[in-house]
Amino acid sequence: MRREGPAALQYSVTEGLPRLREWIATRLRSRYGIACGADDVLMMSGSQQALDLIGKILLDPGDLVAVENPTYLGAIQAFDAYEARYLTVATDDGGIVPEALEAELARAPRRPKFLYLVPNFQNPTGRTIGAERREAVVRICEARGLMIVEDDPYGELCFDGTCPRPLASYDSAAPILYCGTGSKIVAPGLRLGWLVARNPALRERIVPAKQSVDLHSGTLAQYLFHEFVSQGGRFEAHVARIREVYRQRRDAMLAALREHMPACVRYAVPRGGMFFWLAIEAAIDTEELFAAAARERVIFVPGRAFYANRDRGNELRLNFSNSQPEAIAAGIERLGRAVTTLTFGS
Amino acid sequence: MRREGPAALQYSVTEGLPRLREWIATRLRSRYGIACGADDVLMMSGSQQALDLIGKILLDPGDLVAVENPTYLGAIQAFDAYEARYLTVATDDGGIVPEALEAELARAPRRPKFLYLVPNFQNPTGRTIGAERREAVVRICEARGLMIVEDDPYGELCFDGTCPRPLASYDSAAPILYCGTGSKIVAPGLRLGWLVARNPALRERIVPAKQSVDLHSGTLAQYLFHEFVSQGGRFEAHVARIREVYRQRRDAMLAALREHMPACVRYAVPRGGMFFWLAIEAAIDTEELFAAAARERVIFVPGRAFYANRDRGNELRLNFSNSQPEAIAAGIERLGRAVTTLTFGS
Repeated sequence: MRREGPAALQYSVTEGLPRLREWIATRLRSRYGIACGADDVLMMSGSQQALDLIGKILLDPGDLVAVENPTYLGAIQAFDAYEARYLTVATDDGGIVPEALEAELARAPRRPKFLYLVPNFQNPTGRTIGAERREAVVRICEARGLMIVEDDPYGELCFDGTCPRPLASYDSAAPILYCGTGSKIVAPGLRLGWLVARNPALRERIVPAKQSVDLHSGTLAQYLFHEFVSQGGRFEAHVARIREVYRQRRDAMLAALREHMPACVRYAVPRGGMFFWLAIEAAIDTEELFAAAARERVIFVPGRAFYANRDRGNELRLNFSNSQPEAIAAGIERLGRAVTTLTFGS
Repeated sequence: MRREGPAALQYSVTEGLPRLREWIATRLRSRYGIACGADDVLMMSGSQQALDLIGKILLDPGDLVAVENPTYLGAIQAFDAYEARYLTVATDDGGIVPEALEAELARAPRRPKFLYLVPNFQNPTGRTIGAERREAVVRICEARGLMIVEDDPYGELCFDGTCPRPLASYDSAAPILYCGTGSKIVAPGLRLGWLVARNPALRERIVPAKQSVDLHSGTLAQYLFHEFVSQGGRFEAHVARIREVYRQRRDAMLAALREHMPACVRYAVPRGGMFFWLAIEAAIDTEELFAAAARERVIFVPGRAFYANRDRGNELRLNFSNSQPEAIAAGIERLGRAVTTLTFGS
């Protein structure tokens, strides 16, 4: 505030603070191999806004969007507002199944406007798409001229090693838009994300669309964000600390799940991010379980809302990043009780 | 940050920070007579977002919006994105002409979805609608069941006395939405505005629409804003200071206009806000003048973009709030030279 207060409190440009766009481009180039410059990076009011603006410029009512099944609820909400329909693509523990994508595209009545993916520690499933599948997905989309929207909020939160490189780092003749966010590595309350669009024609549509919805993202928030991340050592230490804290919480949740869940509850172990995804192999609807669990004073997100067509109800999403290990253990114990009661009777 | 840092940096609710909504409601009730409570106030990422969300929930392609002619460019941009068409209503130095509104509504092919107005120190004209006309407009709209969207960014910036009370303070059977902003009284870089919607059915559509576009507005920005405004004396002193500084700049611009503009340039004296609106009574297009003025190193906003149908080109908007009196005097002298050269030849 002493140094740059007047500028930090003033109106700014729609594209975002140049030095912050430069920092993001440099990081994406050097760590993730995305061949982008600062001009390709557009600051967003959270990556949710990137999804909204992509819908705004690309979707007409009835247009198809290809999505992983299940996929991020907020993306469904953003695209629903433009009256999208969905081509849902099967996934397994390795994420989207390329053969399923190929088959769905072959039998779709028309080409979707884009494929939306969360490749790292997906919300809600915690799954990560492996390198081979990434390459296969890029090639399938390239062959069909299908744009990819790669949403990567969790890629920095890898507990062991690093994630496979982003789809946006592959050379492809079809555009790949990349969405990132500061919410998981700095602070969600700043509402800052970014959209990397190397295609100038797309940027020329996104910038006026953003101007019409909020002029630009918070100026002070962008100055603060840049100040925090540009002192490299401190930022890296902060992210390393988050990773370690979240890993401990993942481990606490895993131990508690092993102890308290009946055998009908299946899950994979996420290698990063924030979520476990539980499938209950029983005649149970997790919206019904939600009410029972709430009586035990523990809540979760029922899985149905993550299915674009809302056609599957026996799963649920657990967040492990936001609670202390002791609270996680207590919560899972209660949830296990609710599952057991509902599945087998009390 | 010491007291409430974790909450101020975290995700928050879509509707906004309760204590800030309470402060806004109290101010609107006590100073402006708008009978609203905190629940009626929805925080927005700048009032531009209120315009976007109103368009998003109310407008289908081809729908009519009634607007003052000219009107705020950002509103046209927001509504254009939803493929609105415009019913343009004549204005004079007293703002929108009620008889013209009545006549336009009578001959419109269908009822507009709403009437959009900037009643105080309008952007771009600086004009204020008088109390009698406000009442007349409210009654015309009530009789036809026409919603009003009242956009009031400049109402606090009255240089002598106060503005007539807001349209939203009148009892009416037709809904009146009221948009306010922190941009002109605290800081635009925080990107905070508010939408007051006393109609619960409208709020229930706006809140999920906002959630789908950016989840919520900046949490830290809302905490900072509340901290600043809730210390009543300091905030009132700040607004009083802005009014005085802007009044001096208005006076500086007025003196310079009187000295440097040829007789073919007409303008009214704004009693508040940020803008002079100049009409050049000559065969001149102010987009052409813009190029000539830019060569003299002074710029303005050509008037055409403020006409929804872009059908009038001999006017321009000057901002006086953002420059020192000396710079204003120098700029108007240069602009006067450009006008004179273009009108009479060099």
